[in-house]
Amino acid sequence: MIPSQGRISEPIRYAVEKPGRMLRPTLVLLSSYLLEDLPEGERDTVAQQRVIEAAAVVETLHIATLCHDDLIDGATLRRGRPSTNAVYGDALALLAGDYLLARCMQVAASLDVTRVQVMADTLIDVCVGQMLESSQLHDAQRTEEDYLAAVSGKTARLLRTAAGMGALRSEASDDARAALERFGHHLGMAFQIWDDILDICSEETGKQQAKDIMNGVYTLPVIYAVKDVPDLVLPLLRDLPISDEQCRRIVAVVRECGAIDRAAELAQRHISDALHAVETHPATMRRAPVVRQCLRDLIDVFATQHPALHVLPTAP
Amino acid sequence: MIPSQGRISEPIRYAVEKPGRMLRPTLVLLSSYLLEDLPEGERDTVAQQRVIEAAAVVETLHIATLCHDDLIDGATLRRGRPSTNAVYGDALALLAGDYLLARCMQVAASLDVTRVQVMADTLIDVCVGQMLESSQLHDAQRTEEDYLAAVSGKTARLLRTAAGMGALRSEASDDARAALERFGHHLGMAFQIWDDILDICSEETGKQQAKDIMNGVYTLPVIYAVKDVPDLVLPLLRDLPISDEQCRRIVAVVRECGAIDRAAELAQRHISDALHAVETHPATMRRAPVVRQCLRDLIDVFATQHPALHVLPTAP
Repeated sequence: MIPSQGRISEPIRYAVEKPGRMLRPTLVLLSSYLLEDLPEGERDTVAQQRVIEAAAVVETLHIATLCHDDLIDGATLRRGRPSTNAVYGDALALLAGDYLLARCMQVAASLDVTRVQVMADTLIDVCVGQMLESSQLHDAQRTEEDYLAAVSGKTARLLRTAAGMGALRSEASDDARAALERFGHHLGMAFQIWDDILDICSEETGKQQAKDIMNGVYTLPVIYAVKDVPDLVLPLLRDLPISDEQCRRIVAVVRECGAIDRAAELAQRHISDALHAVETHPATMRRAPVVRQCLRDLIDVFATQHPALHVLPTAP
Repeated sequence: MIPSQGRISEPIRYAVEKPGRMLRPTLVLLSSYLLEDLPEGERDTVAQQRVIEAAAVVETLHIATLCHDDLIDGATLRRGRPSTNAVYGDALALLAGDYLLARCMQVAASLDVTRVQVMADTLIDVCVGQMLESSQLHDAQRTEEDYLAAVSGKTARLLRTAAGMGALRSEASDDARAALERFGHHLGMAFQIWDDILDICSEETGKQQAKDIMNGVYTLPVIYAVKDVPDLVLPLLRDLPISDEQCRRIVAVVRECGAIDRAAELAQRHISDALHAVETHPATMRRAPVVRQCLRDLIDVFATQHPALHVLPTAP
């Protein structure tokens, strides 16, 4: 997978060698499992191998976009160690990202042309989502609608694709695939809202404070605060660049006006919608308890970082 | 082709709206024409439309890589106007490049899976070529072999792909396609060597002086000079960053030791090899005079910029 020419393989190898939570490939495997109705010994091993390759395709696209995101943000850390750009410089990190995009398309093409189409469509939506965000930096007029459109592209699209990928099998019906895609989409929306809440609350968790606000990315809690208590927030967003002290005051206002809880409630609604998609569709409802358990585990991971993120909807 | 969401379409539109020499799409059409043996009225219009779409796929990949190259080089000009990064900033230029990569794969997938495979393979080779170059900046030990490996990837690969794309038709034989790919490869090698010579001689043509040397990209003429007159060149490459005065002296030594003419001779040999590929293959030799005329026109464009670049090999 990685070119052999000495030093140039290093940034690519570095970018892929440290796994994250593997949420996206897990979703591919999970959605395939949800639709599987043969006992383990009778399953088509070729089809299973293709599902694993599809999971690798999805994760490869994800890592490629992380390489480019870190460049855009000037991020120095990723997955608990220096980012690819921090270690190898911007040029090699950008090219490592391009290489991985190409590799993603190459493996997708070895599966079938539909998967290439899906991955290309996905990358387009991810780019549009990121561009929406990048074009609204430091924009105090950013609306909830703007934010949701950006998140739907930059995060939820790849999770929707991952969940749909496992359903790209001859026996899966179009509407079963659509149900799984809805599941992935809503999970992605909740996931990004949680991530953005944790960024605002980062000082409590011992991380660098509110990187999003410092970078001019105004996420849902800030947008709610601008709407609810404009007189308190807008003056603080006016002076650029935002100082550490200014950032602390913005975070305090956001927390005190209840914007964190409102954002957490919207994430919960997306989790409810995600569960609803798999718990009501005939093709997936049989194994929906597995999904509920997976979500419980995922929520636990987030809840250890902030108490607002702990609620799983009750079973229907 | 371009997303409708207000401002985010602008950087993508800007990146594609100013055509360059259109060398790559022209090569796709030319290679298809070389293999065509039906009179105009009897040609398959669907197949012709697919060739035009393949030409668009190749140019889209080219523009995407230019967006990223300009970022890597911090270039402020492209095709006679401000680069995409200069106008819209690095983040949106990087994402516009990613968007265009995705769009390239999307249209290739609408043609057939083979074209996706070819475009993904091409992007991988282009990245590897660029990475080789980026990993050898300011490396006075860079060899002719290193340089040719980088150029083979970063420039010649896409021209080889363009020439082969026009031969991706049911009636074209594998060896006719391979002959056209050789043609594209050698043309690409010559093309990049010429471009690098013009960069060294840029002061005479009124452009910013030797950008490659200033950026630490040591191209063929510099590599020849390091080999031929190391005592004159190496001390000048030692002090970093390279000052304007230092750069002027390096250029003077490179020109005086005959390295420009030697590099031009290698480019001529690649042109000979390119012509040989089409003039000797049974499937392409019938229309090879058209290729010779195209090359003559192309060489004229370069020769107006520097006299060393004017020789077309005599017909066999």
